[in-house]
Amino acid sequence: MPSPAHSPMLKMTSPQSLTDFLSQKLPQNYRTHLRTSVLPTLLTSITRIAECLRSSLDIQAAGSQNTSGDAQLNVDLATNEIIHAAIRTCPSIISASSEEDEGENAVQHDAGIKAHQHGKEQYAVAFDPLDGSSIIPANWSVGTIIGIWDGKSALDQPAETHQVAAILGVLGPRTTAIVAIRLPKSAASLCFEVGLSSATADVVVVRDRVCFAAPEAVRTRYFAAANLRAAAQEPRYKALIDRFIEDEYTLRYSGGLVPDIYHSLVKRHGVYVSPVTAKSHAKLRLLYEVAPVALIVECAGGRAVDPTSGERILGKRVLDVDDRSGLLCGTGDEVEMCIGMLIGGGKR
Amino acid sequence: MPSPAHSPMLKMTSPQSLTDFLSQKLPQNYRTHLRTSVLPTLLTSITRIAECLRSSLDIQAAGSQNTSGDAQLNVDLATNEIIHAAIRTCPSIISASSEEDEGENAVQHDAGIKAHQHGKEQYAVAFDPLDGSSIIPANWSVGTIIGIWDGKSALDQPAETHQVAAILGVLGPRTTAIVAIRLPKSAASLCFEVGLSSATADVVVVRDRVCFAAPEAVRTRYFAAANLRAAAQEPRYKALIDRFIEDEYTLRYSGGLVPDIYHSLVKRHGVYVSPVTAKSHAKLRLLYEVAPVALIVECAGGRAVDPTSGERILGKRVLDVDDRSGLLCGTGDEVEMCIGMLIGGGKR
Repeated sequence: MPSPAHSPMLKMTSPQSLTDFLSQKLPQNYRTHLRTSVLPTLLTSITRIAECLRSSLDIQAAGSQNTSGDAQLNVDLATNEIIHAAIRTCPSIISASSEEDEGENAVQHDAGIKAHQHGKEQYAVAFDPLDGSSIIPANWSVGTIIGIWDGKSALDQPAETHQVAAILGVLGPRTTAIVAIRLPKSAASLCFEVGLSSATADVVVVRDRVCFAAPEAVRTRYFAAANLRAAAQEPRYKALIDRFIEDEYTLRYSGGLVPDIYHSLVKRHGVYVSPVTAKSHAKLRLLYEVAPVALIVECAGGRAVDPTSGERILGKRVLDVDDRSGLLCGTGDEVEMCIGMLIGGGKR
Repeated sequence: MPSPAHSPMLKMTSPQSLTDFLSQKLPQNYRTHLRTSVLPTLLTSITRIAECLRSSLDIQAAGSQNTSGDAQLNVDLATNEIIHAAIRTCPSIISASSEEDEGENAVQHDAGIKAHQHGKEQYAVAFDPLDGSSIIPANWSVGTIIGIWDGKSALDQPAETHQVAAILGVLGPRTTAIVAIRLPKSAASLCFEVGLSSATADVVVVRDRVCFAAPEAVRTRYFAAANLRAAAQEPRYKALIDRFIEDEYTLRYSGGLVPDIYHSLVKRHGVYVSPVTAKSHAKLRLLYEVAPVALIVECAGGRAVDPTSGERILGKRVLDVDDRSGLLCGTGDEVEMCIGMLIGGGKR
């Protein structure tokens, strides 16, 4: 395998505390609660999730189903509660929704925590505590996805302006996360990587800028093809796969949305395709999976679109917690090529 | 994604200590040092490797190369030393070789450890301390591979009889390993999974029998296609990929040999292909990667063959630490199908 030392991988930066980093990078007094309470608390909850998985030698079905009808694992329920417990300590998080719960609910804060009223910062948090259940038994890296929305609800809001931050946490050999914060001037938006340590409970910025490489800097081109079985029925998807092979792209597809997207961000190149075909319906949740991923990818200089229309994901509104979507995202040029192959004509 | 609760996944068994498990399963007095010293010590070293990775927020090139010319990471060197340190405490391990070292070397035991002389159990250990360097920066699961050979050297010995045990350790959200022990009556050979805990330093058996499912029990068929770029030049490999797609196999390919093989073992179905073509030479090391994987796959009831000849991997001898090979392994029926597609005529 090519060594990372030979690829245009993102360089590590000198580790810096999250607090110091955000003070330097964000405008003064910009969303004080987001940066001093919401983000540190949610990132630390990912450290707790990693500890929970590490001590769960016995992964098994909990005997229940989530609202999507998926059988729940014992660790799905335990990790869901870890994030809820963190949220209950944050006065500015007013509502929360999770792939493991029903609908969006008002947060019942812990005793002594006074929820913010109108006029102060208020957020709605939507999350998938443990994405990638199917690969947990094999001990592959899985992830946590969190979207942070401005205001009392994530529903029926323009994602472009109201989803103000997102977190993709990878639970692997280490515990790491990529965080995006959208600023009003989008060119100033942040996308950075943190390392999370159980030993010190620290959140440390290890890469201060996560961004896709310029085309001339790309030496290895990666693709991740979700639901490859759909290529058996959909000639356009099959043609796209054939093109990846002919053009000698490198395949990396774990089947976990978070590690798959994360790989492209760290390697600075990649395209992820989760298609929708006549026989294969949209599988990913817009609120818990697609919208946060889209924010991260855009803040890293990439594109994230609906593979059936080419429409920008962040141009949508989430009307229901169970809204589904396909996803085509990654390096801009590759997304453009895939739109041409899957839809034709480069429609946007 | 389909939930593991719906697949014929291996069931967890009531956790049991490694010592108790091996006492029950192995003939009395069978290879006492292997079971009371070599295996527990090497498995515990994988726990140490997991701790090392977990605290390595800063993954970077060490500035050196291994004998294969791959750039070494700081964590390659640190994990290599962890296993060497473990080996130096085992009196029955006489020689050791590692993908990060040059050649096979006599073990210099720690002070106070008296190496076994002829007439007592003697082992040669060959290992890849950290397989999957290319996916470490993205925080994907990686692995440790260890082969344990009867006698003073792993070289120029028939693998079938002399490689007596192997370990595939997965460094992921948890730390787990699959262990195979070949017994003289191969039907009695063991293949089981352990969980490794940093907190307690325990080695606990979590699945007492790891084995591929019978064809009638298989609901989802998986494939892992290594070096997919070779399909651009090799029509037989391309035809095999097309067949996987047409027949609606599910793709899981992380690019890490250990997690890819491990997935098939836990899901009880899968086929892994690392082809060799005119333009794409054999990449995997026979000693450090292919032979230990082949032992595990065979002890789990599967097949492991050379994809160019159909020859059984364990029918080979390793003549040099740098001998390379392709690999085709997994569920027996699938391996047979792939031999037909890649070589023709089902030659063995």
